[in-house]
Amino acid sequence: MAKLGDMQISSAALLKASSAATTPPTLAERYRAVRQASLALAAPLSAEDAMVQSMADASPAKWHLAHTTWFFEQFVLGRLPGYRPLQPHWQVLFNSYYQSVGPAHARAQRGLLSRPALAQVLAYRAQVDERIGQGLRVGSLDEEGQRLLLLGLQHEQQHQELLLTDIKHALWSNPLQPAYRDDLPTPPALPARADAVWIESAERIVEIGAPAWPAHARFAYDNESPRHRVLVPAHALADRPVSNAEYRAFIDDGGYRDPLLWMSDGWAQLQAGQWCRPLYWDPALEREYTLGGWRALDPDAPVCHLSWFEADACARWAGARLPSEFEWEAAAAARPVAGNFADAGLLHPAAAAATAPGVPRQLFGDVWEWTGSAYTGYPGFRPLPGSAGEYNGKFMCGQFVLRGGSCATPAGHVRPSYRNFFPPSARWQFAGLRLARDL
Amino acid sequence: MAKLGDMQISSAALLKASSAATTPPTLAERYRAVRQASLALAAPLSAEDAMVQSMADASPAKWHLAHTTWFFEQFVLGRLPGYRPLQPHWQVLFNSYYQSVGPAHARAQRGLLSRPALAQVLAYRAQVDERIGQGLRVGSLDEEGQRLLLLGLQHEQQHQELLLTDIKHALWSNPLQPAYRDDLPTPPALPARADAVWIESAERIVEIGAPAWPAHARFAYDNESPRHRVLVPAHALADRPVSNAEYRAFIDDGGYRDPLLWMSDGWAQLQAGQWCRPLYWDPALEREYTLGGWRALDPDAPVCHLSWFEADACARWAGARLPSEFEWEAAAAARPVAGNFADAGLLHPAAAAATAPGVPRQLFGDVWEWTGSAYTGYPGFRPLPGSAGEYNGKFMCGQFVLRGGSCATPAGHVRPSYRNFFPPSARWQFAGLRLARDL
Amino acid sequence: MAKLGDMQISSAALLKASSAATTPPTLAERYRAVRQASLALAAPLSAEDAMVQSMADASPAKWHLAHTTWFFEQFVLGRLPGYRPLQPHWQVLFNSYYQSVGPAHARAQRGLLSRPALAQVLAYRAQVDERIGQGLRVGSLDEEGQRLLLLGLQHEQQHQELLLTDIKHALWSNPLQPAYRDDLPTPPALPARADAVWIESAERIVEIGAPAWPAHARFAYDNESPRHRVLVPAHALADRPVSNAEYRAFIDDGGYRDPLLWMSDGWAQLQAGQWCRPLYWDPALEREYTLGGWRALDPDAPVCHLSWFEADACARWAGARLPSEFEWEAAAAARPVAGNFADAGLLHPAAAAATAPGVPRQLFGDVWEWTGSAYTGYPGFRPLPGSAGEYNGKFMCGQFVLRGGSCATPAGHVRPSYRNFFPPSARWQFAGLRLARDL
Amino acid sequence: MAKLGDMQISSAALLKASSAATTPPTLAERYRAVRQASLALAAPLSAEDAMVQSMADASPAKWHLAHTTWFFEQFVLGRLPGYRPLQPHWQVLFNSYYQSVGPAHARAQRGLLSRPALAQVLAYRAQVDERIGQGLRVGSLDEEGQRLLLLGLQHEQQHQELLLTDIKHALWSNPLQPAYRDDLPTPPALPARADAVWIESAERIVEIGAPAWPAHARFAYDNESPRHRVLVPAHALADRPVSNAEYRAFIDDGGYRDPLLWMSDGWAQLQAGQWCRPLYWDPALEREYTLGGWRALDPDAPVCHLSWFEADACARWAGARLPSEFEWEAAAAARPVAGNFADAGLLHPAAAAATAPGVPRQLFGDVWEWTGSAYTGYPGFRPLPGSAGEYNGKFMCGQFVLRGGSCATPAGHVRPSYRNFFPPSARWQFAGLRLARDL
Repeated sequence: MAKLGDMQISSAALLKASSAATTPPTLAERYRAVRQASLALAAPLSAEDAMVQSMADASPAKWHLAHTTWFFEQFVLGRLPGYRPLQPHWQVLFNSYYQSVGPAHARAQRGLLSRPALAQVLAYRAQVDERIGQGLRVGSLDEEGQRLLLLGLQHEQQHQELLLTDIKHALWSNPLQPAYRDDLPTPPALPARADAVWIESAERIVEIGAPAWPAHARFAYDNESPRHRVLVPAHALADRPVSNAEYRAFIDDGGYRDPLLWMSDGWAQLQAGQWCRPLYWDPALEREYTLGGWRALDPDAPVCHLSWFEADACARWAGARLPSEFEWEAAAAARPVAGNFADAGLLHPAAAAATAPGVPRQLFGDVWEWTGSAYTGYPGFRPLPGSAGEYNGKFMCGQFVLRGGSCATPAGHVRPSYRNFFPPSARWQFAGLRLARDL
Repeated sequence: MAKLGDMQISSAALLKASSAATTPPTLAERYRAVRQASLALAAPLSAEDAMVQSMADASPAKWHLAHTTWFFEQFVLGRLPGYRPLQPHWQVLFNSYYQSVGPAHARAQRGLLSRPALAQVLAYRAQVDERIGQGLRVGSLDEEGQRLLLLGLQHEQQHQELLLTDIKHALWSNPLQPAYRDDLPTPPALPARADAVWIESAERIVEIGAPAWPAHARFAYDNESPRHRVLVPAHALADRPVSNAEYRAFIDDGGYRDPLLWMSDGWAQLQAGQWCRPLYWDPALEREYTLGGWRALDPDAPVCHLSWFEADACARWAGARLPSEFEWEAAAAARPVAGNFADAGLLHPAAAAATAPGVPRQLFGDVWEWTGSAYTGYPGFRPLPGSAGEYNGKFMCGQFVLRGGSCATPAGHVRPSYRNFFPPSARWQFAGLRLARDL
Repeated sequence: MAKLGDMQISSAALLKASSAATTPPTLAERYRAVRQASLALAAPLSAEDAMVQSMADASPAKWHLAHTTWFFEQFVLGRLPGYRPLQPHWQVLFNSYYQSVGPAHARAQRGLLSRPALAQVLAYRAQVDERIGQGLRVGSLDEEGQRLLLLGLQHEQQHQELLLTDIKHALWSNPLQPAYRDDLPTPPALPARADAVWIESAERIVEIGAPAWPAHARFAYDNESPRHRVLVPAHALADRPVSNAEYRAFIDDGGYRDPLLWMSDGWAQLQAGQWCRPLYWDPALEREYTLGGWRALDPDAPVCHLSWFEADACARWAGARLPSEFEWEAAAAARPVAGNFADAGLLHPAAAAATAPGVPRQLFGDVWEWTGSAYTGYPGFRPLPGSAGEYNGKFMCGQFVLRGGSCATPAGHVRPSYRNFFPPSARWQFAGLRLARDL
Repeated sequence: MAKLGDMQISSAALLKASSAATTPPTLAERYRAVRQASLALAAPLSAEDAMVQSMADASPAKWHLAHTTWFFEQFVLGRLPGYRPLQPHWQVLFNSYYQSVGPAHARAQRGLLSRPALAQVLAYRAQVDERIGQGLRVGSLDEEGQRLLLLGLQHEQQHQELLLTDIKHALWSNPLQPAYRDDLPTPPALPARADAVWIESAERIVEIGAPAWPAHARFAYDNESPRHRVLVPAHALADRPVSNAEYRAFIDDGGYRDPLLWMSDGWAQLQAGQWCRPLYWDPALEREYTLGGWRALDPDAPVCHLSWFEADACARWAGARLPSEFEWEAAAAARPVAGNFADAGLLHPAAAAATAPGVPRQLFGDVWEWTGSAYTGYPGFRPLPGSAGEYNGKFMCGQFVLRGGSCATPAGHVRPSYRNFFPPSARWQFAGLRLARDL
C-alpha cells in the first residue's frame, strides 16, 4: 500500500527541534511544523484510505489536507493584491461552510472526490506552503494576514484531530477493520487504580475565559472571550475521569436498559441506534477498536467514545452529574497543560499514575470531558470580524461543551479556557467524562 | 356543528367567583375551576375538530382532555388503596411519556384515536372529577396525593395552552382555515408606539429561581429550583418585546436571505422549511392567522410564532442579542404578574399602552420570550421523586428557555421564576422576543 | 356514539327491491341505490371514526363520501351550462388526483379535515343527489353527462370497497381495536376441505377483455379494452384459492425466513416491515382481526390481506406460481358472476362448499386474487377522453393485476374482464391467491 | 494520476486476434479475453477513481473488478474438492446479493472499501485467473463448473457495462466533472436525418425467447427461456430510435410540464427530482456530458440516459407508445447483431447512416431501448438450479425490459432474445427509446 512517508513527527516535536534554544519559534517555524504534522498523520494512509467518508459528520483525510490548505489560501494569500487562486475550480470543493466566501460542496459528498487526487492535493499543499513561506520571508503579509495565518494554524490542528477520529471511524466501518497503524505502543500496565477522590470547592467568583484575541496578544478562539466573572457554586469534582471498569459497571447494572437514567432524546437515540455499549467496544465488553487495531480494554484507562447522552446517563447512575464548564475551568486554570496528547504517540487514552491527594489528574489529554454546559456565547461575546466570524459563533445551539483535549489533540493546542463542542449524539470523538456533584 | 357548550369562563375567573371573599380558594375549588376551564376551551370544537393532529409535535384537543384526566387518575387516585382504573385499556392511550408508569401510545398517532369518542372522554373526565371531589371531601387523599393533585392542576394549565396552540395549528392546516372562535374581540387601536427603550443594569449577584416545592409551601416546578445565586453581568434590556413592524423591517431588509445572521442549524432549517416569514403570516406580510381567523397585522403588537432561530437572527440583525433567562428574571422579579393572559379573552398578543419610563412592559403575557439560555438544570437541581421526576428533568438538552407566559397561558399559571422550554425550531407557540445587549 | 343510521342495505338489494319486475333498473334507480349503499356502509361510523386516516394509502370514510360526490358534481353537473359549484372551496379538498381539473389536497393529509363536518358532507351529498335527480328527471343531462354518471356509479362502488378496507385498517390501528360492526354473522362451519384440484387447459387463443365502452353499450373500464386475442399457454389452475390452513403451513415451514422464496424487493420489504404473517393475524396464528372484530381463523377460508410479495412467495413455496390475468380470465369467462360479495353481509371471506369436479370455485367474491401479471395497457388501449382518461391509464406501472372481486366488493360491480390493481407491497385489501402451474 | 495501463482492447477484439483462423475460441481463450477487457476498461482510472460510489444503485469500479472475480472463485473454483478461498474475509465484501451463499456487505457502503486496495484486487484477479487457467488446463473443472465459468463470463460482461455507466455517474457527480477518457473519438457528422419511417407488421404468432441453456448448447440467461409462442398484434415500429432533436422538441413543447403525459409515479418522480431534461444534458439543452467529457449534442444521435418514465411520456407526446418486448424481438430476430457496441470505441450513441427502406436500424447497440413490457418470467420459466437461480428471477417485479444493447455493451454479449431490466426511474444507463403504434 502506498504510504505518504514514514513521518510520525508531531508539530510540537518539530517545534522543539527547530527551537532548541529558548527563543520562541517564529511564525514561519510554527507554520512549517504544523503543516508537517498533518502530513505525518496522513502518512500511514493510502490514497484510497484518504478518500473514505464513512458518515456525513466525518470527512476524508484528503479533504482535511486540502481544506486546511484552502483556508490559508483563501484567508491569508487571498488578501495579497491581485492574488489568483492556484486552482479556481477547487474553491467550492474545499470550502467547508463559509457562506460569506461562496458556495460549498455538499458535506455528505466529500467522499466522492476522487479528483483532485491525493498527489495533487499534496502538490497544492506544497505550492501554498511555498507562497506562504515567501510571504513571510518578504514581509508581504500584513498584520491581519499574519493573524489569519495564526488562526489557520489553530484550525489545522483541529483538523489533525478530526483526521484521526474520522479515519478511525472510516477504517472501523470497513468489515476488515484494519488498524490505522500497526506500530502503536500499548501503554504500560499500572497498579490497579483506587477509587476516584472528590475534590471539593466552596462557592466563589471565578474569572472564566480568555482575553479577546487579537486585541490581547495570546491566541484564543473568539468563543473563549471575553474573560468574565462567573459565580461557581459549591461543588465537588472527581480527581480523574471515569474508567472503563467503572463504565462497565454501569453497563452491567443495566444502564442501557433503564430509561429513567436518560434524557428523553438520549433514550430515543439509544433505541434508534440500538446502543448498548461505547462506540468501539466489542459485544463481549472486553475489547475495543483503537487506531492500533483491536485490543483488550484496559480497565483503568478512561472510558471514551461516549456520546453526551451516555456520559450524562452514566453520571446520573453514579449519583453524580457532569461538571459545568466553569467548574472544570476553575479546576484546570492552575494546572499545567500536560498529559497524553497526540504527540505522546499513543493515540489512545491511558491510565494515569497516582498523584498527590487533592490534585486532579488527566484534566488535559486522554479524553475530552463532556460538561453539562450547553455551548453558548459568553456575555459580551463578539465573533471575529469577517469570514472568521463564521468559525465558532454560528454553532452556538444544540451542542455541549467539552474540555481538556484528548490523546488525539496536538500538544500545545488546548488551554484551560479552550472550548470544544459537539452535538449530544456524537460518539466518534475521544470523549469521556469526569464526575461532579453538588455540595 | 356540535359544541361542548358556551362556556368561556377561565379558571381564574371561576376562582374569583368562587371565592369572592378574601379567603384563598380551597384545593377543591381550584380543582373545579381548572377542570372547568379546560372544558370551556374545548367548547368551540366539534368532536371532529377535537381529533385533529396536524403534526407529531401537536396533540388533538381530545387527547389533551383525556391525558390531563389520566394524570389525576394515575398519580392521585392511583395512590388510593385498591384503586382500579375506570378504563384499564385507556392507560396506554393517554400516557404521554412516563416510562416509569408503562408503555405509551406513539405520539405521532394520537390523531388516529376515534375511540374513545369525545363524549366518552368527557364522561371519563366527569367520573374522575367525581372521585377526586369525593377524595377531597372525605379526606382520603394523603399529603402526597394532595401535592400531586396540585401538580396535576399546574399540568392541566400547561395543556390548556397547548390545546390552544395545537388547535390553532390544526385548523390552519386545513385549507379552509376556519377560525377557532368567531367572536374573539380585536384589541383597540393604540397611539403609534415609540421606539423601545433600553433599561440598563450593572453587574450584580441575583437570586434566581424558586425554593424547592413541596419543601417550601409555594408551588414551583422542580426545574425552577433550587433558588441560587447567579452573577448577572452588566447589560441593557428593551422595555418591551419586538413588534410586528420591527420584525417586518427585519424581513424587508433581507433577514431571511442572509445566512450570516443565522445559526448554522437555523439556516439549514430555514432552507428545508422554506421559511421567509413568521409561521402564520400571509405572503404579503399584511395579515396573520389568529384563533379568531385571518386579521390585519397590528404593527405595534408583539411579533409571535417565531422559532428561536428567527428570534436569534432578528436580534443579531438589530445589533443586539437575546437576554439570558437570568437577565429576564432579574427584571421580572419585582414586577406584578399581570398582562394579556388567556383569561383576558383576546387569545392574541396586543400592543401595550405606554408606561412610566424605565419600567419594562409586557414581561408577562402576550408572548413567551425566547431567551439565549439553553434549558439545563440549576446547580443542585433535583427532580421530584417518583414518576413526577419525569416531568421536566429529562428534557434538559437541546431546548431553549422561554419566559413570561403568553396570551394563551392561563392567568395565575406563571411566575417570575417560571421556565418554559421548546426546541429552537418550534414555531407554533405564542413565542416572540425582547432584545438585550451588553454594556 | 352517533351513528348515521341503521341501514345495511346494499345497492344490489336496493335495486332488486326497486325493480321487482323484470325491467332493468333505470339510471335514476341505479343512482339512488348506489348512493344509498355508501351511506349504509358509513352508518356504523361516528363522525370521529369517519375522519381517521391511518396511513397515506388509505382515506377517511368522510373523504370517500365527499370525493365520490365531488366526482358527480365535477364531471356530471359541471357540464350543465352556467353550473356553479355548491362549495367552491371544497373543490381542492375532494379532488383525488385529477391534474386536468386543478390542484388536489395532499393525499397524506386527508385525515386533518375536521371541516367540513360529516354532517356537512352528508348535506352536500343530499344536495348533489337532488340536482342529479332533477337533471335526470328534466332530461338536462346530455349523453356524455349520462355516461359520466354511469362512470361515477362504478367509481363510487370502488370507493365503497375502499371505505371498508380503509376503515378496517383505521380501527385496527387504534390500540383498542374495536369492531366496525358487532353484528356481523360468522359463516357456518363446513366439512373439512379437500385438497385443491388442478384444472388443466391446453394452449389456446383466448379473447380477452371487453369491447370499449361507451362505443359498446355494456359498461367496462377503459383498461379492460380493447377486447383482443391472447395466446394462453397450456397450464393448470387450482379449483379454489389458497386457504388459511395452507398458508399457515407455509409459515410453519419457515416461509417468512427463507429469502430464496421471495422477490428481492419483497425480502427487503419483509425485513423493513418485520413481516412474519398476514396483516391482520395475531402472533399465535390463531385469530384474525375482521370487520366484526377479532375471530378465530377458519382454516378452510381463503387466506387474505396478503401483499403480492407474500402471494408470490407462497406460490413458489408450493411449487407453483401465480396465474396470469389471462389464465384467470379464460377460466372465469364462462362462470356466473356469483359469490361472497359485500351484499352477502359477511364482509369476510368464507370457505366454499364443494362443487362438481373440474369446476373452479370462488373465482368471484371472497378474495381478490393476485395474478402474476403486471398492470399495463392492452394492445390498442386508449384512455377515455378528457379527465376520465386519468382514471386508470396513468397507474400502468409498478402495480399488479388482481381479479374477481372480494367480500367487500359490491355485488354487480365486477365482471370476468375486470382488472383491479395495487402495488406489490399493499396488504390492506382483501387479497389472496389461487395457484397455477405450467403444463 | 496512476493508470492501470493503456489497454483499450475489447474482449471481442482479443478473441478475434486469438482465433484468426475459423476455429471458435476455446473457453480458456474466451476467459482470458473477457477478463482482460475488464482491466482495459479500468485502465483510465486511478485507485481513487475506482473507489467512488456516487449513489446506492452504482458500484465502485474496484468493486466490479473484485465482485466478478469473487463470482468465479465462489461458483467455479469453490466446486473443487477442498478448495480454500484466497481471501476468506473478502467473501462478504464482494458478494452482491446471493443469499444462498451467505451475508453480503451493504450495497450502499461499497464506496467505503479502501481496503483491499486496488492493487490487491488486481492481484486477486491474477491469482484467480491463474487457478482458473490451471483448472481448464488440467481438466479439473467438471461440466457444471465449466457451465458456471461460461455464466461468469456473461456476468463479467454485464459488469463491464455497469463499470462504464457507474464511473460516468461518479465522475459527473464530482463538481470538476472530468472525462473518463480524453481520447474518445467523436463520430463523424452525417447528412441530416430524415424522419423515422414506420415499419408495419400484421398480427402473427411469434416464437419468442431462447431454448433453455444449458440443456440447449447455446448460452442464454434463464430469463430468456423457455422459447415459446406469443401472439403479437398488428403494429408499426419506427425504423430507428428517437433522436436528440426529436427529444428536444418534446422538451420544447412542454413535455416536462404537462402531467397528463406522464405516469402518476413518473410525475411524482419528476417533481421530486426536479427533472426537466435527460440526466446528462446541460440546462441550455445544447451539450451533454459523455465518457469523453462535455460535448455538443448531436441532433441526429439517439437520445439516451432516459428513465422509462421519460421514454413513456415522450412516446405518448408523439402519439405513439413504447413497443412491447415481443414486438421488438420479432423485428430483431432476423437482423444481424451488429452495431455501435463498446468495442467500437465510441462509448456514446451515434447517428446511423440511412439503410434500405423498411429495414429497422440500430436495433443493436447505441442505446438500450425501453419497452412497454414489465419484466416477468415467461410461461414455464425455471430459474437455474442453485445459487445461479438468484441471478435473474428474484428481480421480476417493478422493472421494465430493455432490449438491444448499447454503446457500452461488449460486442457479442447480446442477442435478439436478450432481456435487460431496470426500474422505471433509472436514468444512468445508456437507455433510449424506439416508437411503436397500434394498427
